[in-house]
Amino acid sequence: MAPPRPRLVVPIDLKKKPWEQKYPLHNRWHPHIPPVANVREGEVFRVEMMDWTGGSVADNNSAMDIKSLDLTITHYLSGPIRVSDKGGNPANPGDLLAVEICNLGPLPGDEWGYTATFDRENGGGFLTDHFPSATKAIWYFEGIYAYSPQIPGLTHPGIVGTAPSLELLNIWNEREKKLAEKDPNSLQICEVVHQRPLAILPTTRNCLLGMINDGTPEWEKIANEAARTIPGRENGGNCDIKNLSRGSKIYLPVFVEGANLSTGDMHFSQGDGEVSFCGAIEMSGFLELKCEIIRGGMKEYLTPMGPTALHVNPIFEIGPVEPRFSEWLVFEGISVDESGRQHFMDATLAYKRAVLNAIDYLYKFGYSKEQAYLLLSCCPCEGRISGIVDAPNAVATIAIPIAIFDQVRSSSPSLLKGSPSQVRASAAQFDRFLTAVKK
Amino acid sequence: MAPPRPRLVVPIDLKKKPWEQKYPLHNRWHPHIPPVANVREGEVFRVEMMDWTGGSVADNNSAMDIKSLDLTITHYLSGPIRVSDKGGNPANPGDLLAVEICNLGPLPGDEWGYTATFDRENGGGFLTDHFPSATKAIWYFEGIYAYSPQIPGLTHPGIVGTAPSLELLNIWNEREKKLAEKDPNSLQICEVVHQRPLAILPTTRNCLLGMINDGTPEWEKIANEAARTIPGRENGGNCDIKNLSRGSKIYLPVFVEGANLSTGDMHFSQGDGEVSFCGAIEMSGFLELKCEIIRGGMKEYLTPMGPTALHVNPIFEIGPVEPRFSEWLVFEGISVDESGRQHFMDATLAYKRAVLNAIDYLYKFGYSKEQAYLLLSCCPCEGRISGIVDAPNAVATIAIPIAIFDQVRSSSPSLLKGSPSQVRASAAQFDRFLTAVKK
Amino acid sequence: MAPPRPRLVVPIDLKKKPWEQKYPLHNRWHPHIPPVANVREGEVFRVEMMDWTGGSVADNNSAMDIKSLDLTITHYLSGPIRVSDKGGNPANPGDLLAVEICNLGPLPGDEWGYTATFDRENGGGFLTDHFPSATKAIWYFEGIYAYSPQIPGLTHPGIVGTAPSLELLNIWNEREKKLAEKDPNSLQICEVVHQRPLAILPTTRNCLLGMINDGTPEWEKIANEAARTIPGRENGGNCDIKNLSRGSKIYLPVFVEGANLSTGDMHFSQGDGEVSFCGAIEMSGFLELKCEIIRGGMKEYLTPMGPTALHVNPIFEIGPVEPRFSEWLVFEGISVDESGRQHFMDATLAYKRAVLNAIDYLYKFGYSKEQAYLLLSCCPCEGRISGIVDAPNAVATIAIPIAIFDQVRSSSPSLLKGSPSQVRASAAQFDRFLTAVKK
Amino acid sequence: MAPPRPRLVVPIDLKKKPWEQKYPLHNRWHPHIPPVANVREGEVFRVEMMDWTGGSVADNNSAMDIKSLDLTITHYLSGPIRVSDKGGNPANPGDLLAVEICNLGPLPGDEWGYTATFDRENGGGFLTDHFPSATKAIWYFEGIYAYSPQIPGLTHPGIVGTAPSLELLNIWNEREKKLAEKDPNSLQICEVVHQRPLAILPTTRNCLLGMINDGTPEWEKIANEAARTIPGRENGGNCDIKNLSRGSKIYLPVFVEGANLSTGDMHFSQGDGEVSFCGAIEMSGFLELKCEIIRGGMKEYLTPMGPTALHVNPIFEIGPVEPRFSEWLVFEGISVDESGRQHFMDATLAYKRAVLNAIDYLYKFGYSKEQAYLLLSCCPCEGRISGIVDAPNAVATIAIPIAIFDQVRSSSPSLLKGSPSQVRASAAQFDRFLTAVKK
Repeated sequence: MAPPRPRLVVPIDLKKKPWEQKYPLHNRWHPHIPPVANVREGEVFRVEMMDWTGGSVADNNSAMDIKSLDLTITHYLSGPIRVSDKGGNPANPGDLLAVEICNLGPLPGDEWGYTATFDRENGGGFLTDHFPSATKAIWYFEGIYAYSPQIPGLTHPGIVGTAPSLELLNIWNEREKKLAEKDPNSLQICEVVHQRPLAILPTTRNCLLGMINDGTPEWEKIANEAARTIPGRENGGNCDIKNLSRGSKIYLPVFVEGANLSTGDMHFSQGDGEVSFCGAIEMSGFLELKCEIIRGGMKEYLTPMGPTALHVNPIFEIGPVEPRFSEWLVFEGISVDESGRQHFMDATLAYKRAVLNAIDYLYKFGYSKEQAYLLLSCCPCEGRISGIVDAPNAVATIAIPIAIFDQVRSSSPSLLKGSPSQVRASAAQFDRFLTAVKK
Repeated sequence: MAPPRPRLVVPIDLKKKPWEQKYPLHNRWHPHIPPVANVREGEVFRVEMMDWTGGSVADNNSAMDIKSLDLTITHYLSGPIRVSDKGGNPANPGDLLAVEICNLGPLPGDEWGYTATFDRENGGGFLTDHFPSATKAIWYFEGIYAYSPQIPGLTHPGIVGTAPSLELLNIWNEREKKLAEKDPNSLQICEVVHQRPLAILPTTRNCLLGMINDGTPEWEKIANEAARTIPGRENGGNCDIKNLSRGSKIYLPVFVEGANLSTGDMHFSQGDGEVSFCGAIEMSGFLELKCEIIRGGMKEYLTPMGPTALHVNPIFEIGPVEPRFSEWLVFEGISVDESGRQHFMDATLAYKRAVLNAIDYLYKFGYSKEQAYLLLSCCPCEGRISGIVDAPNAVATIAIPIAIFDQVRSSSPSLLKGSPSQVRASAAQFDRFLTAVKK
Repeated sequence: MAPPRPRLVVPIDLKKKPWEQKYPLHNRWHPHIPPVANVREGEVFRVEMMDWTGGSVADNNSAMDIKSLDLTITHYLSGPIRVSDKGGNPANPGDLLAVEICNLGPLPGDEWGYTATFDRENGGGFLTDHFPSATKAIWYFEGIYAYSPQIPGLTHPGIVGTAPSLELLNIWNEREKKLAEKDPNSLQICEVVHQRPLAILPTTRNCLLGMINDGTPEWEKIANEAARTIPGRENGGNCDIKNLSRGSKIYLPVFVEGANLSTGDMHFSQGDGEVSFCGAIEMSGFLELKCEIIRGGMKEYLTPMGPTALHVNPIFEIGPVEPRFSEWLVFEGISVDESGRQHFMDATLAYKRAVLNAIDYLYKFGYSKEQAYLLLSCCPCEGRISGIVDAPNAVATIAIPIAIFDQVRSSSPSLLKGSPSQVRASAAQFDRFLTAVKK
Repeated sequence: MAPPRPRLVVPIDLKKKPWEQKYPLHNRWHPHIPPVANVREGEVFRVEMMDWTGGSVADNNSAMDIKSLDLTITHYLSGPIRVSDKGGNPANPGDLLAVEICNLGPLPGDEWGYTATFDRENGGGFLTDHFPSATKAIWYFEGIYAYSPQIPGLTHPGIVGTAPSLELLNIWNEREKKLAEKDPNSLQICEVVHQRPLAILPTTRNCLLGMINDGTPEWEKIANEAARTIPGRENGGNCDIKNLSRGSKIYLPVFVEGANLSTGDMHFSQGDGEVSFCGAIEMSGFLELKCEIIRGGMKEYLTPMGPTALHVNPIFEIGPVEPRFSEWLVFEGISVDESGRQHFMDATLAYKRAVLNAIDYLYKFGYSKEQAYLLLSCCPCEGRISGIVDAPNAVATIAIPIAIFDQVRSSSPSLLKGSPSQVRASAAQFDRFLTAVKK
């Protein structure tokens, strides 16, 4: 007989707040956040998710919601989900959890998304020193396309992770605390200066722990230890790998009994690096997943890359389906900053320069710079580390598929060229949805 | 009538040294290195090149040549080539030079290449703190494949560049000098520590200037100003973009009259980042090129990204032909170093961790770590910047096409698995060509 | 504001028969079958469909339902749907209707499908002289995969068509009647002999006309004229182009006011040619469509290829998303039949021979011949006309993506090879779902 | 040490006639044509070839040479080449010969090609009833592109085959004789009527047998038995599979000791079906090959598909490198002929109709019909058998990659559209090389 259709283990009601859901969402990593569902190996199950801001961003023409967004509460996760094998024995620390993405998409009735940049005072982005203001663009989905311009979406979750153990959590808190305590000025030597805090340490403020009620002593204790969800870490988490779409498989280390899998931050489409920070086409959505437990898999397949056996990273197998693009335009950056100063092998800076080059190029064809920045952030660009050994310049590139533009492809020279009218029409269409809020 | 076949403008005789060639090679960027050939827009011409060491690496089983290689003389370039339009007027500063790669390949009779890592005391590599010794692997080419293991080559030049103007050269020398003077300890805060000098400044030592004779006053003056060719810069140069194969087009800024195009450092195949430094499959080879001059193109298509109009980068259009791979295994790294220390958004470190993860994974399947390091450096891996905004962790990934392995593809779990005998046979075959010279 | 989600214009209740649906299905082409819904240009709407047999095939281990299937009633279509422009004016004869496939998939709760061959006495298939018995294979879907073996589905509708005008209908009926009247023996000279009738002419038997009640005089008149839906014709119809998935666009000629668009015969996956007749992975499903009316487009873009202006064919634009396969094994057939007789440039026969060669090859690796036949019919094989000018042999090929097999890829020789145990395990898994009913 | 570069086993001097070459070419299949070279398994060797007409077509603006071309002497092959294993034992009947294409290309100094249609009185082509006159187009190569319009070439040999045994040769001659004797009128029922003879039987006229001198008794005997090379048959031969480029492997049955491999008919690029007969971009060229002998492989991997064990077909593995195209426009044909007559499941006719539809479509954008016909014949179009089971209409399609046109890609509607001036410029450029000679 046909298998029952994917069991819905985490439902979302978009009319409710994250903390009002049947299974309240969480926004921290901690081993003691209790699972809200049990699934078995081999079972296909469905998890629904709010967008990463929990519905704080509206489908309208104002970026005021972005400007005033409370980043201390964002990144809502659905789960945790406890995984057992067919015999009912839970995944154990040291196992690998293979998570296959069978299906995914926007939540029915909520087929839209947004891309935004935060204000320099409120989170900023990769290019916040160039683009200090909040902006927002709204996208409507029609199947694999979001319109203005036409983007075939390679939908994926930004966050898939297992719960850390207390030991791993302590390692995270220790190392991030050390960084946070550092004199930020020392960073200016070889790093892009970001206005964001170096690391955001555990805090009870706006801490959501799923089924654990706010204000209880248990909540208080966990909230003071639990890790924020912004950075990707050993447990996977916010890895933002744009190709993790249908048919992909993620091999996550298991740190606690039952694995305690959480997911969130669905993206309709994203460019490598998600450069504008809120940079994918962000949306609510669902995942249909299937898990497999590889007993002892951490030891067999992963190698600790630090002082303890916990310093590992997941492995990913990307799916076989992706948009075909025949023509790419590639922009390059090297590790020399905007003031002309030479840095040593800094791939972050080189990528920043490559993205800035691409923005300026698109600007010549009728996009505003803010539009181009949002576009590179959410369309399926490839961000590559091209050269990482030729001191002192790291070379990074960003490759843009030309097919996403409604534009003339001319052959001689084959640089992207359009009659201004055509391009501006497209830009105007885009403009309807983009509002820059000046400080 | 059929056009004459590509005119050979820079011939190479592999039995001669770089400085004994009909048009002696150069190893510096300088506007006063005289052109050795003139080509016209639209003409298809052929440039031959020695491998980047000028024939210093031999097809044998010893890495002694790598260990003792004199890096102060390497990176030999063919050219410069002066480009004029059909009316005979040269490219001028401010123009863009579009260079199309019509054909390329190894030099007939010299169908082999090598991949190597340098000794920590002599150049090192991206992972020199993990792999401090010189190693060498030899590859023989059979059409698009190099053997052990089977790698479909996406052949490309590592270096294509125009000559800098004196003004641009001064900018380079100034900024690299400032970096070289910096206390290297300050870098340890947020950077991988490399043993290599921060930047290699102009020096007369081993300076080759093509048609300008050694030791003349002219040579002396230029050698003291001319830039080393290791880093990619505003003129293109050593960009190591692995997709620049047949059908690609490179849009180079023109800084001097005639453009003075130079090329070198042919690669049979390379992984993104060319991580082992001498990390592509290095070879001698030829390029068949066609140029186009876009008058005033620098201003029209490029945007200065620094204090002067010269702070630009080339644009690349990659060709339509590349290997099809259906399955990729993706390894991730975050910006936490081997000691467990947290760094801030350091993509260079994150990529290093991703590559180390991939090496350790391959080690489990019968490759030595040195083999895996060389393999990732030269096979068509994709190095991606996946997340660059989620403080404090940059997330970088390296994706490996599974098809390059002679190995069992099993489906459950679909991690790369092989019966040890099969994999080791392949490794043994590889071993024949790899010799580690211990310090 | 976000657009309303796709309006459901044709709902399906899988517990009801095709003629009991809210909008009863039809199984004929005729201009007077009344539209059941109106849509406007630019609107995204959703059409649901039963599988092509209207639920007659069950998810069980017996092929008896296939053996006894009443082919005179099958090929149920949803619709017709009348299309108007934004001003409310209907599509008119001579316009082109551009239909974009925004989304599609199985009906929720019904995620399974089947592939089958009919008995020689009941429809048969492309290879019915080799495979005379009814067989059935059941597939369960998990996201983009159907299992045993792993097939990334490129879901598409087998049938999309507009209603013919009376004039076009007459042309069809005339020409098919002439063929049906022909002495079938004359075909044996240069054609594969099929047991199926040459053409199935209009008949009132089992005729379903949507909203027109059975047995009324109107029904009687239309049923005697209306065309069967098996063959593709000028109106599109049963074209079985396997790449018509998300993002595709179909340009259909408009023959009657309102276009009267009908769809049906959803496929989870299909190989070129759909060789076993019931040869895709057949399923129920939905389409989310968007239409555009190109006024006068028939004259502008299509060219009549016969005696009247109605002899045209649709144009298709296939979508940008498809599975990536790196390795293909290609089997060839020439127009020499099984008895060794030479035929003249017969691509149909050549393709038959190519498919037989592929079946025999897979048989060597542990599949039964019936399994291989079903597999080639439903997995994403490419059927190519390779040579069509070298008398007397047409050359046709079928290319199979190796990645669909759970099997050893060995390199020397690289023919598909597997340890029998592995392959048979996969075959055994497949066997669970395949039952051959002997005559 | 590096292996010696490919050994040149069959050199070509383009200034000489086919029969004046060092190893005179042959134009027949026969077991007694003596090998001209010996190669060993694993050795990479180079074979050079004249174009298929042996230099009879000139690079000029007249199609007179095409009109008067003597088709009785064409299809010159290089070889045969005898293959032995590493121990010196020859390939034996019953073995499989795996031939890997390591490299291939035009002969240096001869980088041009042509596409043509023959006069109806002299060979004709697939559409000879629509295009009865001789035409010719010249192409010049620049790397992977041929110009006007821009076509990335997927170079391949049209012919690769082993020598037949006497027994197989007899089978061929018998079956083709039977076809030739048939009343051609009987074909008109279900077949496109071609003006070409049904099959061309052995004849001494213009027979070339390599090293066997003309007019000797041996030559006389062989010439009366030897098979013409036009059709592909059990030994491979003229299979015209357009993807057999670098990295491909062909598994040929061995019928005589030493295999006696012959090759010819190099194509710079071809569309599926090679519809205009002389329809690829024809050129002289070279192949660099490597062979492997699979002992007993015929029995192990091939299955006889007829009365004897010799009725087999080769297997092909296509290479991993091909042009990426993102957008395809697909034209459909059904088995209804130009007079409106219905045929039964005739894929040959359906493909003819699809090609005619595509030609008429391109005609609307400024190409002449003759240009379009030649273009579809030589550019990388895909000819697919889409439906082969839905009686009475076979459905065939031809898919054209849009990127080969220098043309506007507009999005709404996305049919191929260009301002006439742009398209006509491209057509004019093409026209320079196309000359139709009226009868």
